[in-house]
Amino acid sequence: MPSDESIEKTAAPKRKKTPTAEQMAAKQQEISVTEFFEKNKQILGFDSRSKSLLMGIKEAVDNSLDACEEANILPDIEVCIEKVGDEDYHISVEDNGPGIVHRMIPNVFGRLLYGSRFHALRQSRGQQGIGISATVMYGNITTGKPAHVQSKIEGEDEVASGMDIVIDTKTNRPIVTNDKPFDWKGKDHGTKIEYTIKGRYITGKQSVFEYLKDTAIVNPHAEIIFRDPDGKKYTFERATDIMPPRPKEIKPHPEGMEIGDLMKYSSASAQKTVSAFLKNDFSRITDRIAKEIVQKSGVDGNKKPSDITREDAIAMLAAISEAKIMAPPTDCLSPIGDTLIKKGLMHVLDGLRPEYYATPVTRSPKAVNGNPFVVEAGIVYGGDIPSDSQVQILRFANRVPLLYQQGACAITKAISDMDWRRYGLEQRGGKGIPFGPAIILVHVASTKVPFTSEGKEAVAGFPELQSEIGLALRLCARNLKSHLNKMERKKKTHAKFEIVQEILPDMAKKAADHLGKPVPNLDRTITRIMNVVWVEPSMKKESKSKRCIKYTIYNYTSSVRTFRLHAQLPKESLKDLSLYSSPYFLDINDEGKANWEIREIQPSAHVEVAFDLTGDMADTFDPDDIYFSGLNPVMVMGAEMLPGDWGIKGMEIIESADDYVEEDDEDKEEEEEDLDDE
Amino acid sequence: MPSDESIEKTAAPKRKKTPTAEQMAAKQQEISVTEFFEKNKQILGFDSRSKSLLMGIKEAVDNSLDACEEANILPDIEVCIEKVGDEDYHISVEDNGPGIVHRMIPNVFGRLLYGSRFHALRQSRGQQGIGISATVMYGNITTGKPAHVQSKIEGEDEVASGMDIVIDTKTNRPIVTNDKPFDWKGKDHGTKIEYTIKGRYITGKQSVFEYLKDTAIVNPHAEIIFRDPDGKKYTFERATDIMPPRPKEIKPHPEGMEIGDLMKYSSASAQKTVSAFLKNDFSRITDRIAKEIVQKSGVDGNKKPSDITREDAIAMLAAISEAKIMAPPTDCLSPIGDTLIKKGLMHVLDGLRPEYYATPVTRSPKAVNGNPFVVEAGIVYGGDIPSDSQVQILRFANRVPLLYQQGACAITKAISDMDWRRYGLEQRGGKGIPFGPAIILVHVASTKVPFTSEGKEAVAGFPELQSEIGLALRLCARNLKSHLNKMERKKKTHAKFEIVQEILPDMAKKAADHLGKPVPNLDRTITRIMNVVWVEPSMKKESKSKRCIKYTIYNYTSSVRTFRLHAQLPKESLKDLSLYSSPYFLDINDEGKANWEIREIQPSAHVEVAFDLTGDMADTFDPDDIYFSGLNPVMVMGAEMLPGDWGIKGMEIIESADDYVEEDDEDKEEEEEDLDDE
Repeated sequence: MPSDESIEKTAAPKRKKTPTAEQMAAKQQEISVTEFFEKNKQILGFDSRSKSLLMGIKEAVDNSLDACEEANILPDIEVCIEKVGDEDYHISVEDNGPGIVHRMIPNVFGRLLYGSRFHALRQSRGQQGIGISATVMYGNITTGKPAHVQSKIEGEDEVASGMDIVIDTKTNRPIVTNDKPFDWKGKDHGTKIEYTIKGRYITGKQSVFEYLKDTAIVNPHAEIIFRDPDGKKYTFERATDIMPPRPKEIKPHPEGMEIGDLMKYSSASAQKTVSAFLKNDFSRITDRIAKEIVQKSGVDGNKKPSDITREDAIAMLAAISEAKIMAPPTDCLSPIGDTLIKKGLMHVLDGLRPEYYATPVTRSPKAVNGNPFVVEAGIVYGGDIPSDSQVQILRFANRVPLLYQQGACAITKAISDMDWRRYGLEQRGGKGIPFGPAIILVHVASTKVPFTSEGKEAVAGFPELQSEIGLALRLCARNLKSHLNKMERKKKTHAKFEIVQEILPDMAKKAADHLGKPVPNLDRTITRIMNVVWVEPSMKKESKSKRCIKYTIYNYTSSVRTFRLHAQLPKESLKDLSLYSSPYFLDINDEGKANWEIREIQPSAHVEVAFDLTGDMADTFDPDDIYFSGLNPVMVMGAEMLPGDWGIKGMEIIESADDYVEEDDEDKEEEEEDLDDE
Repeated sequence: MPSDESIEKTAAPKRKKTPTAEQMAAKQQEISVTEFFEKNKQILGFDSRSKSLLMGIKEAVDNSLDACEEANILPDIEVCIEKVGDEDYHISVEDNGPGIVHRMIPNVFGRLLYGSRFHALRQSRGQQGIGISATVMYGNITTGKPAHVQSKIEGEDEVASGMDIVIDTKTNRPIVTNDKPFDWKGKDHGTKIEYTIKGRYITGKQSVFEYLKDTAIVNPHAEIIFRDPDGKKYTFERATDIMPPRPKEIKPHPEGMEIGDLMKYSSASAQKTVSAFLKNDFSRITDRIAKEIVQKSGVDGNKKPSDITREDAIAMLAAISEAKIMAPPTDCLSPIGDTLIKKGLMHVLDGLRPEYYATPVTRSPKAVNGNPFVVEAGIVYGGDIPSDSQVQILRFANRVPLLYQQGACAITKAISDMDWRRYGLEQRGGKGIPFGPAIILVHVASTKVPFTSEGKEAVAGFPELQSEIGLALRLCARNLKSHLNKMERKKKTHAKFEIVQEILPDMAKKAADHLGKPVPNLDRTITRIMNVVWVEPSMKKESKSKRCIKYTIYNYTSSVRTFRLHAQLPKESLKDLSLYSSPYFLDINDEGKANWEIREIQPSAHVEVAFDLTGDMADTFDPDDIYFSGLNPVMVMGAEMLPGDWGIKGMEIIESADDYVEEDDEDKEEEEEDLDDE
């Protein structure tokens, strides 16, 4: 800052009342990051009382889930909201995570931009080191009360400790008081944070309850208990004991690296040569590729990495962009997987009695700027979901529900940009959020989700990500559409059946009466008019974890038929032996792909294929998902033609309806003519 | 960071492969704010090549405009984009601002969260101290090249200096090279920044051109020259020489203060007592109010401000919320004003030949959390604006166009939440962005615009702000609707006129022929059927800055009429004496409200009122905005009834049509019957 003198000296004579460059300079100063976020709390998501209440809980729960997964512990989380004043709420979030070592607690909860996951290239909910400290700060600012943190790490000798934390916003450092060890009865390990914050408790679409419900959908391995301000307790039970695979940390991938990244890495490298730097500090750069890069770029491979110049870096980046480098490894990601998405959706949404859970889609991983990402999508359709309003969108990033800023999100944009009319939903002009009885879920998982702000409410629209979301949605929508088509065909055939069985006999009787002849037997006629093999699925819920599946197969054609049925069963649910005892059962592979052979079923006859599914995943099987092979598709109702990628060895796949000659057509016409004659 | 030992010691025996609390602690570390933004560049708006190119220019131009206004200089800004490589662009932005003193240049351009306006409570474009440094950083990262800054401050002894700047992202500090004084020929004062950045040059909705065009609309006092990568030069000329009033800095207003704010202010106060602290450190706290707060809160007024406890603060806030404190002063804001909004829109959009510029609305200032803000809205309608797509939305905050994140913005939400069908635009279900040939402009000005992210692309939806935007839009839409109604009525009356003048004589002639009688004279009949006083405006553009306005007033009623006409003229345009020479001219007040009296105009007669407007603002007058008083509104075409708030002393205001007895109705019916008889 300049001295007072300098200001006086330069006060311009021409424009007395306006400041000069010198006067403006006197005001230049550094802004502490804490002050910045204190003043711009809307950027962190604390822009209204109701949102603030949610944001704090979200940050705490996200941290708990991250910590549990990192330590491979099935999460048990309890959230409690108490109203303690007009606008004041006391919040507590307790987990059974690994706990936080005593000396680290103040920085974790009382310092912004401090964390363990910022530099780590693997999927996690929190990365910024901002969220929970901002919550503590916002509690401090609005109520003047410190946050209270308790934590215990595992180990018989370890003792729990508790302390009060306040953030000094001028310095961005924690101020700790009442730091005391204590006996945390019955607690092996875990962390509990309590704070008081000005807020407003709401219910509905953007509420704490909705956030926890949506969290349960994409974290079916977590048990979450919620006590609302009225003392009412809600439990979101664990839907599966299967822990998601722990994402592994990877090294940076060279793809899409900027020159600044390369120069930063090289100057920080512990390697002695450029060749070693390339090989050891990046993922997917092999010996051979390192050599190729050094050669093509003309950079000396034995040079010290810190001696790389701007020109070297440009040449190396050019060489890297030409080299064929494998995509980044993807074990740094933890997608939910199609079965668990469906399971999660069913577990939480079954109150709506949806008609159909479209088979969710998990895309294979891609990378943008060296950050791997994967997109997943699911659609729930029909039942009690309102059909006259816009579809509900459930957005998730790294298993965290996104409740605000829907309009700013790449997920919303992908949904709006797609023509849903082709998939059975209403949409004006084929643009915008579609209308209809559907809930659309999209999950983006990445080592670095590009959020549009620190509040982590929306995903930025990087072109690569945008296009992957679009693809996932289209594949999932296709599943929905094929279900809707199936249902439509089924309905039509049902209607035809009814007409044929009611009207034909009626007509025959009238014609016979008129002609004074006896009424003819129409069984064969009806069968030939229908001319289908009918597969009728049924499912009975025998207990919470047992489903009895039955397929009744009718041969409404005039020939003897032999063909196969196929279904993808949840492999976890096949402990029951009923599957193997069916006379039609053929085989099943490791992935749960089961095959049956229906041999020589007579015209007008029917047979049954039945089996039981047990366990957690039993309810994720949709009996409508049944396939056939060995029959002309135009003559089958209630089952789909086996897709070409089913891939079972020795299985004869019929690719399309054109492979068949329609043998029965002539017969049928004759039959109809016969009838006319009578 | 813990020592390696501690990690080994606690490696848990039970879950070998998963990290324990100790291992997790070892990874905890501080993140530099520069690293944070380097990794999360989408938060700053640098998330695609095309957007990055725009963001950098936006930050530089915003700074130039701020600096010029602060120093009371009419801004001359030149932006130049050169393509220097496949994706590499060299950008330069030069202004005629006050310049930056030499020692401050490195921090202003090379250090994030460093600036002069963060703590200042007044309207400015930049506040965060992030934008231009982020641009320099992004240039560094993507091309490895330093930015080059030149600046010269006013004064004969001052010499210009230039330097190269790079940001050290680990430390968030500038690294300066080639720092040299030089002779900046013909430059009195100003700053020029040049940098090279990876980018993509696009045209269209989110382009640099569009940004500069929109900037010209809301900164009609600026001259902006743009050279695109093809070397093509565009000039957005200054539309007015009137400098916007310089926003004054204010003290914090106590309204909506959080307890944390109060405690921060009190501990930093230079005042000796709580009473003095209240009176001198806040705006709008008078002696009386300070006393009242001290009394009601029970806090000792002679206590040192830094001794205020949490309990004191709570009591003081309660007392503040009960006290009647004036709204914050508003000279800290610089709204554009309705005339200049219209002027700016016309200046830039006239190529579209819009049919109508709805009178823009500037709301009176409000405050949220002690930050004053004002909302302005304008609508442009018709002409060549496409009528079959969604309306175009022009969003502005503190005179800066917002081109991205439309879906995330409180302005978009306010537009979508409004039922535009009532105002003449199409909209499905009365929700969402309306369709029609319109451009809607909204400007939010505040001492602190609540942006949703550091990229400053969208405004967060604080409830108070949201509702003010809605009100401004509704008022402006009402102006649009009244215009559309007027046009509709005019069209109908025109049609009626034509019919009456063609068909009646025709009918009369046929009837006369049929009866063998002479054709009657229909002049009086036609007049009585029309039964209106017709005001026909016309405008002739005599030169760029001169408009000739003429109103022809026809008395198509059967009585002699005396009444008044009124118009709000741009007061800057009345240098011409023609106004005063009209025999019908009555008077005009300081605001430009002019009045005429049309005395005893005979049935079927007409008179003319004509005058000229000159100067810059001449074209902002819409001749359709003409009002009358002293006549029954149902009998006037082409002018609106004078609104009740016109407020001219001694003027007789007719509030509504009910004040009249419809004297002519009977006559008219008779006349029509007569005609039928013939």
